[in-house]
Formats: sequence, C-alpha cells, structure tokens
Amino acid sequence: MQRIHVIATGGTIEKVYSEQTGNVQNLDSKIDRYFRMLRLPDAAISVTHLLNKDSLEMTEADRERVLAAVREKLAQDPAPVVITHGTDTMVDTGLLLQRNLAGLQYPIVLTGAMTPLGFEGSDGLQNLTESLLAARVLAPGVYVVMHNQVFPVDRVRKDRELARFVWK
Amino acid sequence: MQRIHVIATGGTIEKVYSEQTGNVQNLDSKIDRYFRMLRLPDAAISVTHLLNKDSLEMTEADRERVLAAVREKLAQDPAPVVITHGTDTMVDTGLLLQRNLAGLQYPIVLTGAMTPLGFEGSDGLQNLTESLLAARVLAPGVYVVMHNQVFPVDRVRKDRELARFVWK
Amino acid sequence: MQRIHVIATGGTIEKVYSEQTGNVQNLDSKIDRYFRMLRLPDAAISVTHLLNKDSLEMTEADRERVLAAVREKLAQDPAPVVITHGTDTMVDTGLLLQRNLAGLQYPIVLTGAMTPLGFEGSDGLQNLTESLLAARVLAPGVYVVMHNQVFPVDRVRKDRELARFVWK
Amino acid sequence: MQRIHVIATGGTIEKVYSEQTGNVQNLDSKIDRYFRMLRLPDAAISVTHLLNKDSLEMTEADRERVLAAVREKLAQDPAPVVITHGTDTMVDTGLLLQRNLAGLQYPIVLTGAMTPLGFEGSDGLQNLTESLLAARVLAPGVYVVMHNQVFPVDRVRKDRELARFVWK
Repeated sequence: MQRIHVIATGGTIEKVYSEQTGNVQNLDSKIDRYFRMLRLPDAAISVTHLLNKDSLEMTEADRERVLAAVREKLAQDPAPVVITHGTDTMVDTGLLLQRNLAGLQYPIVLTGAMTPLGFEGSDGLQNLTESLLAARVLAPGVYVVMHNQVFPVDRVRKDRELARFVWK
Repeated sequence: MQRIHVIATGGTIEKVYSEQTGNVQNLDSKIDRYFRMLRLPDAAISVTHLLNKDSLEMTEADRERVLAAVREKLAQDPAPVVITHGTDTMVDTGLLLQRNLAGLQYPIVLTGAMTPLGFEGSDGLQNLTESLLAARVLAPGVYVVMHNQVFPVDRVRKDRELARFVWK
Repeated sequence: MQRIHVIATGGTIEKVYSEQTGNVQNLDSKIDRYFRMLRLPDAAISVTHLLNKDSLEMTEADRERVLAAVREKLAQDPAPVVITHGTDTMVDTGLLLQRNLAGLQYPIVLTGAMTPLGFEGSDGLQNLTESLLAARVLAPGVYVVMHNQVFPVDRVRKDRELARFVWK
Repeated sequence: MQRIHVIATGGTIEKVYSEQTGNVQNLDSKIDRYFRMLRLPDAAISVTHLLNKDSLEMTEADRERVLAAVREKLAQDPAPVVITHGTDTMVDTGLLLQRNLAGLQYPIVLTGAMTPLGFEGSDGLQNLTESLLAARVLAPGVYVVMHNQVFPVDRVRKDRELARFVWK
C-alpha cells in the first residue's frame, strides 16, 4: 500500500452553494466524498482538514500552519503529500514550502480547482485524480498539478483570464 | 404531439458559476441543455428566453413583460405554459398572471430551483421534469410546481429557511 | 404529507452492470438510492421490493403477486401506488390490475426505463420523477407514465424499435 | 504543447448499453466525448480509432495491428502513446509491444476500465485522466495504468475476482 497524505486547506475546490445566501462559500469539507468516487485499492489516504478558506483570505500564519503540517507528516510517517488549496495564492504557499523544506525525500503536490467539485464542468475531480497519481511518480520537490500539467512551483503563475496556470 | 410553451426568466435555476469572479450569476441561459437530457418524444417544446434575472431584481415592468409573453403564446398557439423563474418573487409574478388572465384554457406552471441546474444536489432537473408533466395533466389555472408538490399560486409562499415552498 | 406506495419488481430501471460477467442484470435494488436524489419534502414514500426480475421472465404467478401487493397496500393504507417494472410486459401486468381492481380510489402508475438508472442517457430518474408527480395528480385508474407521457393502460403498447411506448 | 497519441481498441471502457438488446456492446466509440470533459489546455491529443472489440475477441492479427499503429505514431511524430484496451488481454498486447519496441524514447501506457465510461461507479474517466498524466511523466517503457497504480507491463496480471490489476 502506498501511503499518501492529503492536507485540505479550502479554496474553490471545496466551495459549496448555499441555498440561503445564493453564494458559494467554504463551509464544509467535501473532498472525502469525492475521494470515494475514485478507485484507490493500493493507496492509504489520510486526509487532514487543516483550514477551509478562500486562499485570498489566507494569512502568513495560515501558510505557516500548512508548512508545520507538512513537516509533521513527513517526520511522523514519511510519504508523498497532496495539498488542496485555493488557486489564487497556491504558488505563494508552495514557494514557502520549497524554501523551508530542504532535502525532501517525497513530492509535495499542490492542487485545487477553478470550479468547485460537483458543479457542472468542474475540474476538481480531474485535478485530484492527477495529483494522487503525481504523488506516486514524481521526483522529490514541490509542484503544482492541474489540467494534465505538472509545474515545479518556482516555474508557475496563475493566469486569471485564462482560468489556469501557465509557465513563468 | 403536445405543444408546451416555456418562458425562461432567469433565477437560480439558470445561474452559472463564473471562474473569473467566483460568484454565481445569471449570465447565459442553460435550460435548453438540460431539456436535451430529458426524453420528450411526444412534446413540442418552444423556449422563449425572455429575461435572465435574479427574481429579487425583477421590476413591475419585468412582470408585465412576462404577462404579455404568456398572453401572446396563449393567443397565437394555445397550449400549456411553463415559466422558469427565481423563487423569491415567483409567487408575485404568478399572482399577477392569475389576476390578469381570465378564462384560462390551459395550465400555467411556474417553477425554478433552490440550487442551479448542474450543481451537485440541484433540484432543477427534477422541477423541470415535474413541470413539463404538470403542464400536460393539470386543470387550467396558475400553479407553482416544485419538489413533487403542486400549489395553486394563491395558496403558496416560499419558506427561505427550509429552502422550499409551503402552503399558506 | 402525501403517502405514496412504491412497489419495485425489477426490470431495466434497476439493472446493474456486473464487472465479473460484463452483463447487466437484476441483482440488487437501486431505486432507493435514486429516490434520495429527489426532493420530496411532502411525500411519505414506502418502497416494497417485491421482485427483481427482467419482465420477460415474469410468470403469471409473479403478476398475481403484484396484484396481491397492490390490493394489500390499498386496503391497509389507501394511497396512490407507483410500480417500477420491466417495459416488455408492463402493459400485461397493468391490464391484469385494471381487470381485477374495481372501484379504484387512487391512481396506479406503472413506470420503468429503457436504460438503467445511473447509466449515461438513462431515462430512469425522469420516469421516477414523473410517476411520483402523476401519482399525486391523476384521476383514479391504471396508467403507464414515461417520457413525459401519460397513457391509460388499455391504450398503450411498447414500440421496441423506437424504445418507447406509443398509443394503440 | 505536449503531443499525446491515443489509440482506441475497444474494451469495456467504450462499451455502450443497447436499448434494443439490453446488452452492453462495443458499438460506437465514446472516448472522445469523455476527453472533452477534461481540461487539457497544454495537450494536443490525437485519437486513432483502430478497433472496437472486446479484448477476449482480439486475435493475434489485431494485436499486430496495434503494434503497427504504435510504430507508425512513434516514427511519424514521436510522442507518448496511450492505448485504451479491454482488460482481459491488455497485458498480452502490452507484452507484445514490449518485446517488439526496442529503444523506446517515450512511455506507452495501456489503460481501460472495469465498468464502461458513463455508467454509475465507472472507473473509466479516472483511468483516462491518470493515463494522460502518466504519459507525460513516466520514463520510456510499457505500462498498465489504472486505479492510481502504475505497473510495468511485465509485472502485472488481472485479478478477475477483485476486478483490478495486481502485481505478479
């Protein structure tokens, strides 16, 4: 069995539609429900629900919490890590991890979505699927994985108009 | 073939998620795409895209346009009418129709959704399906049809907390 | 609350794909799972899993069991009845019910599907949705309800080539 | 843009339900429709519909056609190759490719599904998603990629009872 740590921090991928307000918000985590739609017979996935925030609202303290959580997982039970994260500041968090995690033995994969899981046209399940595979096969390092692309975190930026990540 | 007129006015049922703004909005009509998911071998459905508004933003002039559109359909090609509409003021529009359409020969069915078509847990396709059947079998009159319920328009109100219509 | 009895007898609507055999078969009932996708706040639905057969394999004894089950429901707790049934002999069962149930106080609605629930392009959830609404609003009698059509059972036949019911 | 060749040969992943026969069969190709559900902004995918067979019915001549098609793609426009294939003889075809393609410069990824694309619980879209990512990141070689697992083709066998591939 391949152990994979998942750290959920919120972002669009986990947003839900509120019938009372008519808005999409980070209220409940829904990623576990979508993992159950995947067949993962040889993966032991443990999900840590660390935060549930739009990444534009994440503070430096929040990013430090992500770093601390990754450090803890790598120390206690060394294995690849997938982090679900809002796309707007995903690269900022990834660069913090890259600067502070020397000598990585496993890949750290950041992913998210442009449209929430379960909304028509969502890219969320595609990105989760890709990230879980990437976590198994990539070399150690910090990456953004979405839309059939794998970017080292220091080579990528979000293009808001195109609603995707591009090389920088 | 059973002719059924559909008049689309917007509301939650037609809202789409914008990847650029992160909000749900009435931008494009999507109801035709969902009609194509239904099997309607004996129904001739003609959709009129009259408005695309959140019903809280509908003015009295908008409601008069709905009334005029219904009148025109009933005059030119008498047949049942289904109106998709935001739920917040659906009853207001329905009461206007009821007051102004004497001697109806066909049912007028108002419907909508609490969660947009195509979002997980949406009630939109259920309500469309029910309304198209109700349009065939109900007696002449003005109704709200949603969630397996049929309400004469003067007997119904929206309960926002419950996110559904209830008898009044 | 509107009580609605559902009697499940199998048929295509409940077929599942077997990964071991590569065939579709009547193995487990799945209609309860699909009812949970509908919003039915004012309906008290009780499902009786009577049979799980392809309707081409139903015997006269099976049809008598359906009749007995309907009689029992109508006697114990009078309310509309929806019967899910294979389409090939749905009309036969319906005619048996019509001949044997004099003085009906409620509608008996037979429905099914051309493609199993949950398979792409399935008409199953549409037909369930329509039948639950029809059960509330139709006059007493025995009907086939599918594809936005309501047929008195003595006026309908299946057209296999068209994969739907037509007037006879 | 990353060029990826896809060669479709049929198998469960492409099976469709026939309303006339009530069976699942390899009739039309449907994988293109499912590719359109994925976001692939940086991938240039060309699909070759070579065969549409249950892999239990594939002959040695069919396997030679697959080999010839892969050779042609690699010669004309060198790039990774994804082959969709029935699972029962996927390993046989993969071993033929491995024996006959010396000095590979790109990965060849075989994938398929236990339940057809678009049927509830299908693993098809997951496997396509994984295979397209694997095609970008794996070292040259011949692999089976399914269910979040990557197997070199000479290390894998199908377990029919478990409905998945396992190490051998």
